[in-house]
Amino acid sequence: MIKLPGLIDPHVHMREPGATHKEDFDSGTSAALAGGFTIVLTMPNTKPPIFDAETLDMALDAASLKARCDYAQFVGAGPNNAEKAASLADKAAGLKMYLDSTFGELRLDDMTLWQPHFEKYPKQYPIVAHSESRSMAAAILFAAIYDRPVHIAHISLKEEVQIIKAAKERGIKVTCEVCPHHLFLYEDLTGFGNLSGLTAGRKEVRPRLAEKEDVDTLWANLNVIDCFATDHAPHTIEEKDSDNPPPGFPGLETALPLLLTAVSESRLTIPDLIEKMYTNPKKIFNLPDQPETWVEVDENAIYEIKAEDQFTRCNWTPFESWQVKGKVRKVVLRGETAFEDGKILVNAGYGKNIRS
Amino acid sequence: MIKLPGLIDPHVHMREPGATHKEDFDSGTSAALAGGFTIVLTMPNTKPPIFDAETLDMALDAASLKARCDYAQFVGAGPNNAEKAASLADKAAGLKMYLDSTFGELRLDDMTLWQPHFEKYPKQYPIVAHSESRSMAAAILFAAIYDRPVHIAHISLKEEVQIIKAAKERGIKVTCEVCPHHLFLYEDLTGFGNLSGLTAGRKEVRPRLAEKEDVDTLWANLNVIDCFATDHAPHTIEEKDSDNPPPGFPGLETALPLLLTAVSESRLTIPDLIEKMYTNPKKIFNLPDQPETWVEVDENAIYEIKAEDQFTRCNWTPFESWQVKGKVRKVVLRGETAFEDGKILVNAGYGKNIRS
Repeated sequence: MIKLPGLIDPHVHMREPGATHKEDFDSGTSAALAGGFTIVLTMPNTKPPIFDAETLDMALDAASLKARCDYAQFVGAGPNNAEKAASLADKAAGLKMYLDSTFGELRLDDMTLWQPHFEKYPKQYPIVAHSESRSMAAAILFAAIYDRPVHIAHISLKEEVQIIKAAKERGIKVTCEVCPHHLFLYEDLTGFGNLSGLTAGRKEVRPRLAEKEDVDTLWANLNVIDCFATDHAPHTIEEKDSDNPPPGFPGLETALPLLLTAVSESRLTIPDLIEKMYTNPKKIFNLPDQPETWVEVDENAIYEIKAEDQFTRCNWTPFESWQVKGKVRKVVLRGETAFEDGKILVNAGYGKNIRS
Repeated sequence: MIKLPGLIDPHVHMREPGATHKEDFDSGTSAALAGGFTIVLTMPNTKPPIFDAETLDMALDAASLKARCDYAQFVGAGPNNAEKAASLADKAAGLKMYLDSTFGELRLDDMTLWQPHFEKYPKQYPIVAHSESRSMAAAILFAAIYDRPVHIAHISLKEEVQIIKAAKERGIKVTCEVCPHHLFLYEDLTGFGNLSGLTAGRKEVRPRLAEKEDVDTLWANLNVIDCFATDHAPHTIEEKDSDNPPPGFPGLETALPLLLTAVSESRLTIPDLIEKMYTNPKKIFNLPDQPETWVEVDENAIYEIKAEDQFTRCNWTPFESWQVKGKVRKVVLRGETAFEDGKILVNAGYGKNIRS
């Protein structure tokens, strides 16, 4: 048995409000606990998006009723809400900026719309940028110009990790996260496991799965990567197998087993894992201690990943039938056993807003 | 009469080698002198592109035989020539990186290909980036990371000038240029003059003509703009009016009259003009003095721009029949009268490579 701190996932889509047939705070935080996470930071691109006091309350009210692990909710950056978003900073996980895929209230297609957010959002809370390739470089330039931290979500490319490395060496306040699927899957669906079940729709994810050279470069630069984040983005099987499949993978229940397997193969160490799933996200996102909180894993348990064993409502995983080594046995959250041997043991509503 | 220093155009396409039916060093440098320029820095995206010692010699040999004003030739950044390009720095105007439109030997579609150029090109010579919007921000990040100057070619957008302003205030070594056509034309072909003659093909230019808000923002931030540059990019009328019109405007012979007209309208001053067409490009590109060199302009001459009066081989101008105020009367280059009252008075070959 290995004892880990309660893990932190800084990038989770709970689909609430607006798409609770995919997930909600109940099913999503159950999945989090089953995956060894005791804090999740939830994304604002819901329906409606979370971009002002009213919509933030909508998400937090739902979470307050349903969440079984602790959480904080991101507020989204829109073209006209810089002041409002900044005024909500104490109540929010951070500010999320969508700099590539843009839609609705959270569209930021012109860099002039980035400036007020970088100027106004309080520096002690992070700005998280969905920003790929050159947009990522632009976001890092903004961090340099405004001398404030920016956290780059889900990096996947060789060029991205190399630029972040160079920017860090220059003292620019940039941090980053990588998702397990960008560490374990290649765009051609070869990789570390059996992917024969991944249809065209199921492999859709943003950022896209990258090439082997990109994946290899991520592994070779683990020291540049501050956090592992799942970007848990559940869609139902029916949606994924439809003619217009939405991008996104569930990830909360597979991240730790996959990474523990990498530990068992000596591609990672337990201290790496604690650093990137606890110490660094706690520091970057300015998160409080969770007293009497830990995770027990059986590092020798060998088993197959099965969607049917998962708590996520979406009912599939890209890692179906992968053999992994390392299993979450027990999660204790603030003195209560919240998960043990496949069962959630705390009620909906037990989870706390760590920013309240 | 106003006496100006010999002007410097840091961004000119001479079309030699490879497309001398559009322009060559003879016609192009004649156009330069007629426009008040005594130094032109010529771009490397010729056929073949200028990217190694052999191709650099091709361009310099042609220039040596034909040029009537002084010049230096850029070397282009390619995916594999960082070391070679750096070794040619003393002989070149600078390094040109095409970060948006990419083709052939000068394609740089991945930011990992930018890094060796930024690492290796000598810091006393500039890197010039064709980089629009987010690519521009990425290029400025590279300047910050590698702590070396980068000069942004032909900015046209509000977001670009605002970011450059912010980056300069932060101490990042970035400079920029703007083209007269981005100061005098809007994308809808309204603007300061009569544009009824501009067909769809003739208005094609890269960066594209921008919106009025962008143009207004450039004028409102002239203090951020280091240089005026023509991006003289001649194509024949037949090519511009074809089904597949290549982007680009001629500009050498219209820049100064247009800008002098703006001076006459109090939107610009003569000291601004000298700063952006002489002092700043001389400093940025580390150019030598030209002794006994000056330009005489009649600031009160009012006349219409006519393609038929021009020396450029391309035989058209987007500013056809615009009324302007301010005319180049005489250009003296290194003690010789090189242009006077519409006539070129120095021979092909009089121009010198200012890097030799």
